[in-house]
Amino acid sequence: AAAPDPSAAPLDPASIFADLSPAELRAVRTFLMERPELGLAPSRGGPLAKNSLFLVELLPPPKRVALRFLAHGGRRPRREARAIVFFGAQAEPNVTELAVGPLPRPSSYRVLGRRGGRAVPFWARPMTQLEYELLYEALVGAVAPLEPLLREATGFGFQNCSGRCLTFSDIAPRGLGPGERRTWLVIQRFVEGYFLHPVGLEVLLDHRDPDPRRWAVRQLWYNGRYFGSVRELAELHARGALPLARLPEPPARHLFSSYEPRGRFFTGTPSEVHGAKVCEPQGRRYRLRGNRLEYGGWSLAFRLRSSAGLQLFDVRFGGERVAYELSVQEAIAFYGGHSPAAMQTKYMDAGWAMGASSYELARGVDCPETATFLDAHHLLDADGPVRFAHALCVFELPTGVPLRRHFDNDFQGGFNFYAGLEGRALVLRTTSTVYNYDYIWDFLLYPNGVLEAKVHATGYIHATFYTPQGRRYGSRVHSHLLGNLHTHLVHYKVDLDVAGTGNSFETMDIRFENISNPWSAGARVVQPWLHREPRRREREAALLLGRAPPRYLLFTNPRRRNRWGHRRTYRLQLSSHAGPVLPRGWREERGVTWARYHLAVTRRHENEPSSSSIYTQNNPWDPPVTFESFIRDNETIEDQDLVAWVTVGFLHVPHSEDVPNTATPGNAVGFFLRPFNFFDEDPSVASRATVIVRPLDPPTCSRLEIQRWTSPSPGPCVHPEPFTYNGTYRQV
Amino acid sequence: AAAPDPSAAPLDPASIFADLSPAELRAVRTFLMERPELGLAPSRGGPLAKNSLFLVELLPPPKRVALRFLAHGGRRPRREARAIVFFGAQAEPNVTELAVGPLPRPSSYRVLGRRGGRAVPFWARPMTQLEYELLYEALVGAVAPLEPLLREATGFGFQNCSGRCLTFSDIAPRGLGPGERRTWLVIQRFVEGYFLHPVGLEVLLDHRDPDPRRWAVRQLWYNGRYFGSVRELAELHARGALPLARLPEPPARHLFSSYEPRGRFFTGTPSEVHGAKVCEPQGRRYRLRGNRLEYGGWSLAFRLRSSAGLQLFDVRFGGERVAYELSVQEAIAFYGGHSPAAMQTKYMDAGWAMGASSYELARGVDCPETATFLDAHHLLDADGPVRFAHALCVFELPTGVPLRRHFDNDFQGGFNFYAGLEGRALVLRTTSTVYNYDYIWDFLLYPNGVLEAKVHATGYIHATFYTPQGRRYGSRVHSHLLGNLHTHLVHYKVDLDVAGTGNSFETMDIRFENISNPWSAGARVVQPWLHREPRRREREAALLLGRAPPRYLLFTNPRRRNRWGHRRTYRLQLSSHAGPVLPRGWREERGVTWARYHLAVTRRHENEPSSSSIYTQNNPWDPPVTFESFIRDNETIEDQDLVAWVTVGFLHVPHSEDVPNTATPGNAVGFFLRPFNFFDEDPSVASRATVIVRPLDPPTCSRLEIQRWTSPSPGPCVHPEPFTYNGTYRQV
Ligand SMILES: [Ca+2]
Ligand SMILES: [Ca+2]
Ligand SMILES: [Ca+2]
Ligand SMILES: [Ca+2]
Ligand SMILES: [Cu+2]
Ligand SMILES: [Cu+2]
Repeated sequence: AAAPDPSAAPLDPASIFADLSPAELRAVRTFLMERPELGLAPSRGGPLAKNSLFLVELLPPPKRVALRFLAHGGRRPRREARAIVFFGAQAEPNVTELAVGPLPRPSSYRVLGRRGGRAVPFWARPMTQLEYELLYEALVGAVAPLEPLLREATGFGFQNCSGRCLTFSDIAPRGLGPGERRTWLVIQRFVEGYFLHPVGLEVLLDHRDPDPRRWAVRQLWYNGRYFGSVRELAELHARGALPLARLPEPPARHLFSSYEPRGRFFTGTPSEVHGAKVCEPQGRRYRLRGNRLEYGGWSLAFRLRSSAGLQLFDVRFGGERVAYELSVQEAIAFYGGHSPAAMQTKYMDAGWAMGASSYELARGVDCPETATFLDAHHLLDADGPVRFAHALCVFELPTGVPLRRHFDNDFQGGFNFYAGLEGRALVLRTTSTVYNYDYIWDFLLYPNGVLEAKVHATGYIHATFYTPQGRRYGSRVHSHLLGNLHTHLVHYKVDLDVAGTGNSFETMDIRFENISNPWSAGARVVQPWLHREPRRREREAALLLGRAPPRYLLFTNPRRRNRWGHRRTYRLQLSSHAGPVLPRGWREERGVTWARYHLAVTRRHENEPSSSSIYTQNNPWDPPVTFESFIRDNETIEDQDLVAWVTVGFLHVPHSEDVPNTATPGNAVGFFLRPFNFFDEDPSVASRATVIVRPLDPPTCSRLEIQRWTSPSPGPCVHPEPFTYNGTYRQV
Repeated sequence: AAAPDPSAAPLDPASIFADLSPAELRAVRTFLMERPELGLAPSRGGPLAKNSLFLVELLPPPKRVALRFLAHGGRRPRREARAIVFFGAQAEPNVTELAVGPLPRPSSYRVLGRRGGRAVPFWARPMTQLEYELLYEALVGAVAPLEPLLREATGFGFQNCSGRCLTFSDIAPRGLGPGERRTWLVIQRFVEGYFLHPVGLEVLLDHRDPDPRRWAVRQLWYNGRYFGSVRELAELHARGALPLARLPEPPARHLFSSYEPRGRFFTGTPSEVHGAKVCEPQGRRYRLRGNRLEYGGWSLAFRLRSSAGLQLFDVRFGGERVAYELSVQEAIAFYGGHSPAAMQTKYMDAGWAMGASSYELARGVDCPETATFLDAHHLLDADGPVRFAHALCVFELPTGVPLRRHFDNDFQGGFNFYAGLEGRALVLRTTSTVYNYDYIWDFLLYPNGVLEAKVHATGYIHATFYTPQGRRYGSRVHSHLLGNLHTHLVHYKVDLDVAGTGNSFETMDIRFENISNPWSAGARVVQPWLHREPRRREREAALLLGRAPPRYLLFTNPRRRNRWGHRRTYRLQLSSHAGPVLPRGWREERGVTWARYHLAVTRRHENEPSSSSIYTQNNPWDPPVTFESFIRDNETIEDQDLVAWVTVGFLHVPHSEDVPNTATPGNAVGFFLRPFNFFDEDPSVASRATVIVRPLDPPTCSRLEIQRWTSPSPGPCVHPEPFTYNGTYRQV
């Protein structure tokens, strides 16, 4: 939930997509808490088997209503919230989603439609702070008999442990099939970067029952071996029959999992001085009002969904709509390993409140010093709105490469002209820190009508205790640490509306033809030609992940043509190394059926808003949203309102250089939306940042005319000399 | 040929790879011009059938000799030049390459080895300024009868045409088989951006004979029809029987092919003020001495080959060698089209002096204002060294995304710590403007041991006259203009020496296994594991372009292990959308056999220095260098000195937004070299640019300790406030 800044224009049409303000979040909560039939208790404290409000966020207006308002103005669409209620104190405990409205003063609610008419079972709900507290208590109690073992092996413990404590990370899914809620917990030493400090103990704790007194340890794994009970393991150790994995004392300085600098660059080049920075000598060139962002022809509305993160709406260039919605749907990481926690880990981060994990961005590190920072407010597993300061940032980035340039050679040691346009993009960014991992979510706007969506992965790897058998599944990255292989996949919804909602989809690549040479009798010409494949139905438009997709993925408005007679088109271009995470149909794969396709194009339906849900993580076997069902009806998709569902990702085999953290270079994936005969020419010709240099006395080129529409020198933040150019290349 | 700056340290070992200085170039030329047996005439003027010096550049020392010197010092390797001589006045005209030395005072030369013992035939030589002048004269003379047609159709002509002249672009290859030298010339109006102004006339001119008096027009194409002779076309027009393609008068302002700004951004956001820039508040953090560049652990030597561009040598991180050589070999663009020039175009830019086309980089446009610019000197088709001012630039780029970062949540509204390291890379850049196209060649050095090679394409598309049949081969991008489809491919040589010369190559990707669940009787686990495939011979290590390569391409030192027992490895990661340019074995495809493979790994041989040559363009059918022959002997490549030959590229289907120029966003390809268990941990931990923030009073987080090794504020070039951080997220 991104907060409007003080200059917010509440009547800007973009505000219909704005996240709920703290006052609105509070109003929804108060309204629902006061409904006696709901019987809501506070989120914090109390038993698990209670009714409580888990999440409140904006429920965007139906597209039809929003489009009418955007086109014609008039009455604003009814403003509503989505509220997620855990009904834990019911006869049939469940999770129910409500629409609450109208805002700012809600007066009614209704149950939001469930696909297939089924309620979400209570056991499929996401984890809460309360359940974690109970889980921690249950774990500490259950493993108390292991305290001698743990102390001896690690020097750390759970009891009276100040400064030398153990902690745990939980993995998911929490079982092998529907109805289960038993979680492998990885025990770690609580030091800086504890994700890299597993002690070799993994504990399977069953916490399905709403009553924690009935929770129990079902299995353990220690240092490569399984144990049926805590007692079995404790007794083996007491008898001296257990091979211990003794961990060295963590050093006071230069702990390997810490960011503390150590060593020196061999080259001796300085790093204790500040390096290159971004500066804005003449101020901002973008406009940010409320949740409306404008830059170089682009205009869009944005919000930060508490569930799954950034969501753009009403994305236009030159006043014309390119996309109605562009949003992150899901991010998953499926692992392989030898320990039970590793082999079981299939993270689906929407279930871990990915969108609400938007912690503070550091000025000068996470975003340039020049960035504008925005706060967000989430009401998720809390008893009121929570402010996330500096959750988003916006900045203009000098890309370091010209947007376009040309040196027009005269082949006489000079030039006819030189021209160039500096390369810049506006970046809209947020992060999701989902425990160990930090995703950096970017949308980049280029002034030539190109939009780029990109995600970088950084933060700590999800790592497990090293045993020799683990090397089949990754790299040993420290004495007792295995970096487990995993595939990261991210799913985006791209509701392209290419100059209108009626669009068609076709793919294009080259084929070779062998024709007779028209200018040389008897000779042949073999050459490429454009092989276009209109994709008329959803099945034909679902491009499987195992195969290389055609290189041109084109979304066309069949009824609008540019000046040169081409149907106006936007191209989707992927930057991805995605591969399948599991064989098709295998258990948890059914929760991520979107991950079968690089791209699937569907006819848009208001009741298919998302490809995933926050419930998939804890019930991937039979999730409430199954993307495959969107395409199973194989609708025709010609001249329809289409949605492109895009999967990007990469295979991550951790290596020693992932310590202390995965670094961003080479770990970014995403896609471009590029105009393809959408305009009549490159729309960046509107930019006044262009520089043209022409000799006044060709071919001598001793006098040059520098034509530009900006001041000769940008001012004091950079090299103070004005722009100069020579361009000749002369014999010396 | 990159010129050392004034602070050059001539005794730096890197100088053995430095390009020849102007004095050295001159010395080689003088020495050769004075050899009576060579009979050299000046390059400029005179007849084509003369002996002349075409190119002089550094001949790098043999690797064995260079390594010995780099390791042990001692006597510097003998410094030599490669000289290319056109023997046009011989009984059997040919092109011969000579080694000339020792520099700086050459005293002898020898003929450089020819593969297969054959000399390069004279007709396969690259074009020269002289031949272009003669070609222009011949063309103007030959098409004089068409002057009325051209004037009437275009308003422009060849005769007395000041300000309203026609010009031409030539395409290649220049024929259909060995021995031919007949070129399709595309006639264009000479206005700003003439590449986009074909008039509809293409002329096939035979210029094989060294005597231009025997040159002749063999065919013509006008507006979709072929003609056997100029007379035939002229007469048809004179009879009024020729459908003319009448072109409108080019406008005085806002010519579509010009960079002149036109229109306005709909958003009204400003572009007439300077946007975001790069600044260096505390100066440079890299060291540049002569041709040695050092930055954040990286050290390398560089030069700019006149033939094919940037070449890095002795690339080290932390003092250890990662690669001996990293260089651009070739850049090609193969087209399809309906006009004869379009269907014939298969550009191989090494034959167009790609490396010597390093024209001036504009400060603030082509490279940030903060960049260091370097001059280059080339002696190519000239009678002395030619200075190319500001041919290269070096700068530190703020990448806009942290190198790594993590917010360590305490799940109580605060954090255990926040840490981040700003993202920066050092960029070494040059451009090649090969007539219409501008390639931007970058090498990026990241302080975590990652190196990125990247090429952007910009400049004018190679476009031809629009006819309706042309749409099978591209887009109509203006009234009389077809943007022809083409594939760009770039070939790199990467002589990786991973901690030494004895390396092996293996690929890795995941496979799925189905095993019994060790912690739940009767259940199964399906999970990924690491499937490694050692590639023991050159054939197994040649990864065909048509298929997706495995995602991990690993170059390993089998005899060196990192601290955790892994063989020290660098990973090659491709960013490419390359596809085949022609069916295997088809005519011109034999000139670019490297383009069959994403990657081919060969055993290094001193007599296999390059995968292409400057002669391939004019004799692709039987070129002097055939890459396929490097792997045909299928040598074993285990624990050998290996070279990785990397192809990257993309399919370019031009669209209206390529006018006026192709823009860079989305048009970059390249590869990463990434450490993979090469170090013991991420070597960027040596950087002092890290920031760590820890609460002194967890979990309250009201007092924070900011730990950093740089000054709190970087100084005046940026937002003047010191770094601050809060990190809490609180209910409001
Ligand atoms: Ca459907
Ligand atoms: Ca749509
Ligand atoms: Ca070989
Ligand atoms: Ca090697
Ligand atoms: Cu990862
Ligand atoms: Cu191109």
